[in-house]
Amino acid sequence: MVKPILAVNFKAYYPHSFGGNAYRIALDAVRVWRETGVEVILAPPFTELRRILEAVSGTEVKVYAQHADPVEPGAVTGFIPLEGLKDAGIHGVILNHSEHKLRVSEVNYLVKKAKSLGLKTLVCADTPETGAAVAVLEPDMVAVEPPELIGTGVSVSRAKPEVVTNSVNMIRRVNEKVTVLTGAGISNGEDAYMAVKLGTMGVLVASGIVKAKDPYQVMKDMAEGMLKAL
Amino acid sequence: MVKPILAVNFKAYYPHSFGGNAYRIALDAVRVWRETGVEVILAPPFTELRRILEAVSGTEVKVYAQHADPVEPGAVTGFIPLEGLKDAGIHGVILNHSEHKLRVSEVNYLVKKAKSLGLKTLVCADTPETGAAVAVLEPDMVAVEPPELIGTGVSVSRAKPEVVTNSVNMIRRVNEKVTVLTGAGISNGEDAYMAVKLGTMGVLVASGIVKAKDPYQVMKDMAEGMLKAL
Amino acid sequence: MVKPILAVNFKAYYPHSFGGNAYRIALDAVRVWRETGVEVILAPPFTELRRILEAVSGTEVKVYAQHADPVEPGAVTGFIPLEGLKDAGIHGVILNHSEHKLRVSEVNYLVKKAKSLGLKTLVCADTPETGAAVAVLEPDMVAVEPPELIGTGVSVSRAKPEVVTNSVNMIRRVNEKVTVLTGAGISNGEDAYMAVKLGTMGVLVASGIVKAKDPYQVMKDMAEGMLKAL
Amino acid sequence: MVKPILAVNFKAYYPHSFGGNAYRIALDAVRVWRETGVEVILAPPFTELRRILEAVSGTEVKVYAQHADPVEPGAVTGFIPLEGLKDAGIHGVILNHSEHKLRVSEVNYLVKKAKSLGLKTLVCADTPETGAAVAVLEPDMVAVEPPELIGTGVSVSRAKPEVVTNSVNMIRRVNEKVTVLTGAGISNGEDAYMAVKLGTMGVLVASGIVKAKDPYQVMKDMAEGMLKAL
Repeated sequence: MVKPILAVNFKAYYPHSFGGNAYRIALDAVRVWRETGVEVILAPPFTELRRILEAVSGTEVKVYAQHADPVEPGAVTGFIPLEGLKDAGIHGVILNHSEHKLRVSEVNYLVKKAKSLGLKTLVCADTPETGAAVAVLEPDMVAVEPPELIGTGVSVSRAKPEVVTNSVNMIRRVNEKVTVLTGAGISNGEDAYMAVKLGTMGVLVASGIVKAKDPYQVMKDMAEGMLKAL
Repeated sequence: MVKPILAVNFKAYYPHSFGGNAYRIALDAVRVWRETGVEVILAPPFTELRRILEAVSGTEVKVYAQHADPVEPGAVTGFIPLEGLKDAGIHGVILNHSEHKLRVSEVNYLVKKAKSLGLKTLVCADTPETGAAVAVLEPDMVAVEPPELIGTGVSVSRAKPEVVTNSVNMIRRVNEKVTVLTGAGISNGEDAYMAVKLGTMGVLVASGIVKAKDPYQVMKDMAEGMLKAL
Repeated sequence: MVKPILAVNFKAYYPHSFGGNAYRIALDAVRVWRETGVEVILAPPFTELRRILEAVSGTEVKVYAQHADPVEPGAVTGFIPLEGLKDAGIHGVILNHSEHKLRVSEVNYLVKKAKSLGLKTLVCADTPETGAAVAVLEPDMVAVEPPELIGTGVSVSRAKPEVVTNSVNMIRRVNEKVTVLTGAGISNGEDAYMAVKLGTMGVLVASGIVKAKDPYQVMKDMAEGMLKAL
Repeated sequence: MVKPILAVNFKAYYPHSFGGNAYRIALDAVRVWRETGVEVILAPPFTELRRILEAVSGTEVKVYAQHADPVEPGAVTGFIPLEGLKDAGIHGVILNHSEHKLRVSEVNYLVKKAKSLGLKTLVCADTPETGAAVAVLEPDMVAVEPPELIGTGVSVSRAKPEVVTNSVNMIRRVNEKVTVLTGAGISNGEDAYMAVKLGTMGVLVASGIVKAKDPYQVMKDMAEGMLKAL
């Protein structure tokens, strides 16, 4: 049976995305995973990766980096090659987020290298067209997020459902297997329900969860919304 | 009848790519166009665009910018929006050259905007995969150039013919109309002949012409090589 | 006798900064130079440099590039090394504008290289402290422009006179010779008068002139304001 | 009494700079600190910061980040604001390393912000001139590292002693308090001895320690070399 995906981008809100706050969100995510069985992905800042991995240890919750630098290991001060992220124990990486865009060749390099290291890739795109372009590079997941809706609380699945359906159509034309996610403005269970109803396999959410009063409840609602839509 | 394409990237060699030197290459290119009828594209530095346009005035030789900045007109000191390039009278732009890479979303933005302004786009890629990725964005031309061969004089069409054929195959799978060019290391008529024999419509050449002792002769040989291969 | 400086950054407004519009501003600037004798510097987009140089030919009006890429001549598609700018005939370059920031080492590289090529340098800075930092690198001119005032029409010399006086003081502590300019929000003769009264040798202006209804009149007023303040 | 400084930039060598390897270098560093009393600074990759902090807990060994992103907390996926680094418990940051250069205004922003958060700053520069330029911004430490010697094993203190003495002289002219370090190619106790003899307060070392067969012994030799030179 196919499981919908709830991917949480912690971004770098302060203090929400760091330290004890980040840790508590991870524990909440574990609880939602236990209660609903959806696939949960957590993407905390680089400095929190190891601790969040401890928080989810023994569960099927996955931990992704928010970005990967397109570098080989070596004399690259302040950058982290995929080998270093892999060494920390993570399961995958988000690439090309609209707040951390990559060049076409860098996406290709990182997707291929992640694959060779056994890491999953979730590549973001700002339009259905760019979603299809990156889908050609065969990542595991593509999330289409119109930048103008990111962080607004106005969800793409309600405000611009045609972006979601166009994304699915355009991506499917060039890649039949890649998992498509919906992102930007997702803030409640209804948004998540719509994302799956419109043909994607899950949602990529940031402030809607990380800055929520009760992250557990929001994640729970989203998980249940997606399950209802299947 | 289809005409093969000879695209000349002047890059920024000094003094070759500037002033009188650049002007003479443009006059040579006009001569080759008159004698062979191939489609000639010249891409001089920004500062030379207007003069090179004068040099080719009254001919069908086209002038492209080497790059376009992904900006809107306005307070963007030192950058040039497509509107400003268009105003100079150019016919098209090279985008995403391996020496001036663009983000996925920037390629998409620039291709769409160029189209709306009536400018042609020649998008570069470093591998067949990235060539296919950018082809999804529907530029007019895609040139696949393995960076490790650029400037070497070892042509991709002889050293790595499979890169050329894979590019054509992978690009055709996602875009049936886009014109595919061969680049990297092209330095004589034989290289150009092979590029067309392998299924592309022309070549993107830089040092092989710009730094040649006799740019006219090299361009002439390439034009004739391509015509012979059709 | 010391002449105040009127530096005009054309930026990339459309259509103001390009083609016939840019040319007319250059002719206006020549007229102001003839009538007032102030030192006039014009910084049009790269694509307009040669034509603006023609417009000011035979005068003492100077033409600067808005930016210089920190590259050596060669395989640097879409970039222009200082040698290429010099070849076009320009007199100097603006560096590190807040819309085109450079790394510390790049400013140093470009200032030194410009000097060796006989080109003047006008380095921008966003605060008095960074103004002093770049002054250590011994450019010909430093312009301190608080980014939050750029393009507002609210001049730094009236809204934040302490930024101007602090800049002069901090820069003088590390460099006794460099010419200090005032920038950001300068839009009329009074602003220019204040800039000189506060201890700087001139102004760096963009939209206040380039987007003005009557650029000639604004430049004339500014020139006269500065002369009155001496 | 003044203590010489041994700053270790782990960079991103694989597997040296990560996981168990990084942890062991940290324990070695603690031992050298106990045995010699020099000030030891460790700068591991972002993903290792928390674990290295645990390794040095209860000692006076300091942990720095290798870089800081010039961003405010918030929607900045894959970047880490200083607040997030501070939250992890670190003591300071390296800024403007030649492998991760910053713009002039970014160095200023980060130095000021680090100060307000109680974090120390070690700013790198590629020449004596740029060393003086960044010293104007009042960081705690400046390390001058000629990029052409980084990673070579040929130490600046032996190959180009004038770079070290010029750095001290030029920096002192604009900032009397900042601590000056020597970097690039430092690989043994003799290099460290020379660095202090030439007037700096310590060394910034990477591969010379991190990729050494016996990092403990190299650090011990360097610490003793510096103490001998005082």
